[in-house]
Amino acid sequence: MIDFNALFKISYGLYIICSGDEKSGNGFIANAVFQVTAEPARFAVCVNKNNYTFEFIEKSDCYSVSVLHQNTASEIIGRFGYKSGRNFNKFEEINIKYGQTGVPIVLNDCIAYFEFKVVQKFDVGTHCIFIGELVQAEILDDTKEPLTYQYYRLEKKGLAPKNAPTYINKSKLVQKTEVKKSGKYQCTACGHIYDNATESMKFEDLPNDWKCPECGADKEDFIEI
Amino acid sequence: MIDFNALFKISYGLYIICSGDEKSGNGFIANAVFQVTAEPARFAVCVNKNNYTFEFIEKSDCYSVSVLHQNTASEIIGRFGYKSGRNFNKFEEINIKYGQTGVPIVLNDCIAYFEFKVVQKFDVGTHCIFIGELVQAEILDDTKEPLTYQYYRLEKKGLAPKNAPTYINKSKLVQKTEVKKSGKYQCTACGHIYDNATESMKFEDLPNDWKCPECGADKEDFIEI
Repeated sequence: MIDFNALFKISYGLYIICSGDEKSGNGFIANAVFQVTAEPARFAVCVNKNNYTFEFIEKSDCYSVSVLHQNTASEIIGRFGYKSGRNFNKFEEINIKYGQTGVPIVLNDCIAYFEFKVVQKFDVGTHCIFIGELVQAEILDDTKEPLTYQYYRLEKKGLAPKNAPTYINKSKLVQKTEVKKSGKYQCTACGHIYDNATESMKFEDLPNDWKCPECGADKEDFIEI
Repeated sequence: MIDFNALFKISYGLYIICSGDEKSGNGFIANAVFQVTAEPARFAVCVNKNNYTFEFIEKSDCYSVSVLHQNTASEIIGRFGYKSGRNFNKFEEINIKYGQTGVPIVLNDCIAYFEFKVVQKFDVGTHCIFIGELVQAEILDDTKEPLTYQYYRLEKKGLAPKNAPTYINKSKLVQKTEVKKSGKYQCTACGHIYDNATESMKFEDLPNDWKCPECGADKEDFIEI
């Protein structure tokens, strides 16, 4: 028997993984980051092959990891977690630093960052694991707590996006019973709730290019609750 | 520049990874556990090749992950985190359940557990990453918080043991200055402090088979603080 709710007992941080160079690059929000060896200091990150950032890691053989703090702006989570960089430049108006390898590093809401050179790559199906050797590490703010997936899920009511390794199809969690329509829709990026009862227009009738007023996530990132 | 203190900003849970069968087996405390794909549900765990449990995973091609809660007994952390199963049977007097694959699963201080069949193995140097397909998952206690490495480090004053991928040689953290002898020694497993000033015997003079009165860790697991 597999109880998919048990998967929420695994602890993760939330990070922005970036790759590319000064000309072009992209980043996305990831939770699957862990150290694999102490000598030398190497880390594994797990990246969906469909992610735009995946292409930049393949090309440049380097990536950065920015550690987000607990009160990271919803706009940053929406921008890097729920939108694709194929459609717009995620780095526009973002505070970027370029590392020793030339890799972009997001500094917004970031308390520490790491820069890695890829030394191994493993195909695990929908995702690849990149093993990176640490070339730079710096603490930017030692006063704030790192954002964890649990905090994001419980306090911010956020859910993992579809490309995340931890994505759980809601049908696996909820027992199948007759569900009465609630008319309430929640943004999976920032937790914002759109309630038909208090809005002038029904959620269903909003145009497809409508965006979350809180974080700018797309209409399709909302789920009925 | 690499600031090794930055590595503490990466968030991890703490787990007991077990392998073997009903006849023999072993387990150890790990932090490097993450989900790598959602469909199918597969996880990566990172295991030091010198760990006794490594041999059982190699032989049986399965492993279990028990999620520890915040108030896990020091004895459990000492037993599974700081001692080798080569020298004694770690499972003695431990509450073990055997999974569908026959793998042992530790239930002491465990709020959820997972059982995996190994589908891929990657050599990353001192450690191996095993990719396991989820065959069983169960929540045992939904009221307690999972133990995180940060909580263990800050609240319990624990340090990563030498075989952990996150082990940091203290000399990398501390600036080299003339250190006055404090006469205080701390157990890296449970945080217990032995203070020469209040004990009848100096720590240095304790026999080599002396054990931590709190968790049973060895004398060599203490560090001067």
